[in-house]
Amino acid sequence: MTNKIFFTPGPSELYPTVPAHMQSAMENKIGSISHRSQQFKDIYAHAVAGLRQLLQLPDNYEVLFLSSANEIWERAIQNLVQEESFHLVNGSFSKRFHEISGELGKKAGKYEVPFGTGFVPAEVAIPDGAELVALIHNETSSGVCMPAEEVAAYRAKAPADALIFVDAVSALPHPAFDYSQVDSVYFSVQKCFGLPAGLGAWLLNERCIAKAEALQAAGVTIGSYHTIPAMLSKAKANQTQETPNVLNLYLLGKVVEDMNKRGIDTIREETEAKARLIYDYLERSENFEIAVQEPAHRSPTTIVANTKLPASEINKLLSPFDMAVGSGYGNNKESQIRIANFPAHSLSQVQALIYKLESLGV
Amino acid sequence: MTNKIFFTPGPSELYPTVPAHMQSAMENKIGSISHRSQQFKDIYAHAVAGLRQLLQLPDNYEVLFLSSANEIWERAIQNLVQEESFHLVNGSFSKRFHEISGELGKKAGKYEVPFGTGFVPAEVAIPDGAELVALIHNETSSGVCMPAEEVAAYRAKAPADALIFVDAVSALPHPAFDYSQVDSVYFSVQKCFGLPAGLGAWLLNERCIAKAEALQAAGVTIGSYHTIPAMLSKAKANQTQETPNVLNLYLLGKVVEDMNKRGIDTIREETEAKARLIYDYLERSENFEIAVQEPAHRSPTTIVANTKLPASEINKLLSPFDMAVGSGYGNNKESQIRIANFPAHSLSQVQALIYKLESLGV
Repeated sequence: MTNKIFFTPGPSELYPTVPAHMQSAMENKIGSISHRSQQFKDIYAHAVAGLRQLLQLPDNYEVLFLSSANEIWERAIQNLVQEESFHLVNGSFSKRFHEISGELGKKAGKYEVPFGTGFVPAEVAIPDGAELVALIHNETSSGVCMPAEEVAAYRAKAPADALIFVDAVSALPHPAFDYSQVDSVYFSVQKCFGLPAGLGAWLLNERCIAKAEALQAAGVTIGSYHTIPAMLSKAKANQTQETPNVLNLYLLGKVVEDMNKRGIDTIREETEAKARLIYDYLERSENFEIAVQEPAHRSPTTIVANTKLPASEINKLLSPFDMAVGSGYGNNKESQIRIANFPAHSLSQVQALIYKLESLGV
Repeated sequence: MTNKIFFTPGPSELYPTVPAHMQSAMENKIGSISHRSQQFKDIYAHAVAGLRQLLQLPDNYEVLFLSSANEIWERAIQNLVQEESFHLVNGSFSKRFHEISGELGKKAGKYEVPFGTGFVPAEVAIPDGAELVALIHNETSSGVCMPAEEVAAYRAKAPADALIFVDAVSALPHPAFDYSQVDSVYFSVQKCFGLPAGLGAWLLNERCIAKAEALQAAGVTIGSYHTIPAMLSKAKANQTQETPNVLNLYLLGKVVEDMNKRGIDTIREETEAKARLIYDYLERSENFEIAVQEPAHRSPTTIVANTKLPASEINKLLSPFDMAVGSGYGNNKESQIRIANFPAHSLSQVQALIYKLESLGV
């Protein structure tokens, strides 16, 4: 039994209603139902409808469920890039998407800025051959966020046929994207949706579907059970190709229903209010320093600070009080901390974290 | 709340200890821990060690976790076949593996026998170019089982370099394979392990690893985050490339621990005893007829019968008594039933099913 509050950037604190929903799932034997049954189709449809409402997703978007954001990276390149992709890189996850394109044999271009910094759209040149432009809305490794309003700037700079991809793995449902200015957005459920890991959600429009169909028609190998056309054929019947993570789809539908009751505006306002509290504290702390210099590029959901005390020491101090923050990513494991500010983290939990850190003198 | 017992062939009845383990997982916040933490590595190592013991797996085998058996089919072809695979086909799932090889651009040969029938090793000729030979130990769609002792016959017939693959998706831990006579065996957790779906387990030996490394060294594109070398590099550190289905890995370790306490010999004996009861009943029933004519090819875990009453009618009759059997697969949806006989199904539950069917007059 643990009462620890996880301010780690994913897996993270579960949404507070998850244990009760899991209990219901067990009582109703959701783990035993057939993935071809009407009961499953209803669960699937409920999750999709809830997401559409929460994210205010236009009708020209489809929702697909895969096993992770890693898989979405791979499927995006396989299904949508014949020769060339282009990636904005400013941290470990945007770098990994770029690498995956290369590993799959594509010409993968990039525009890279140092870890911890964001992009100035006017400085980015997108090559004419780019079929997919990978934007990183929220870089989970560094805490840099591309403002949702800036995303549209890249459509204007990209070739007309290029598909604009947005990594919102650790951001949605917070950012209010203009979905008409992009072609695909994706996220993982173990971040801001407060669910156990094992599911990635891929939102994509008719331009992505047409591209995958065109490549397939041209004889390009775009995969097997998880090509976009294969996944769509099942998704339209509220099913998946494989036996999926049924329990997580059930929980997603339930949590999204809870989030819709709370309302997306409230969730956004609370996220921003909690972010302000955390950034204000980091600013006045003598131990911490906000890692992202440019205020406009500071993530509201994944807040990163340089720390004088090693991150492991911070967590040792917090441990008796049942709290944990994330360590820095990769080389920054000890020199930075990452604080998740997700819908699962209540205002009072955030206040308690700040109060405790202050009273510990850090 | 439901008390229904699922005799469906997967997802199926959860192993009886799963709800309590899930409760512990929630209380200990397993859904929130980092997949890079020592706690996760311990969970991972526990699952692997338990599987090694239960399956009596030799040391030259590695265990990898993927999201489904569908994914294992795709990764096997991507990682291990440069030009040609060969498939024994006698039902919908063995057929699908064969198709996937073709979809991935390989020359996919097959030896096919009618749905509901098994193979005679002497009649199978394996082409010289076959790099991977896909055997189907247990065809979940038709209930045909290849006796574990017969699996070795194919090694002798195959080219020396060919990798022998065994689909045991809905059979393990029952079959006692001679792992030295094959190169890879795989299964899904939602079948005989009685877990929620969302995880496939891939057992593979050093010959598979060497082949993937050789293809990669030769410049063949074998994937990105889920190449065998990439997965192995993480598996050796008790981790995965992506954020995995942590909760299911935790449950797998716990259920395998419970199964080891029961003992593999007991599980095998009970499986066979329950299978005899079911087949004996089907034989004396006037409504049912055992679908697999050849007694040696009748699956002990996935028992299929032709039915005069449509399968949906059988389930309507059983519904008030909180029982459900599987319908037939595909075209046989109404003309066959499938009864799962997994370790999660107790002898008394099987007896109750038979008693109820008999007292209903079917």
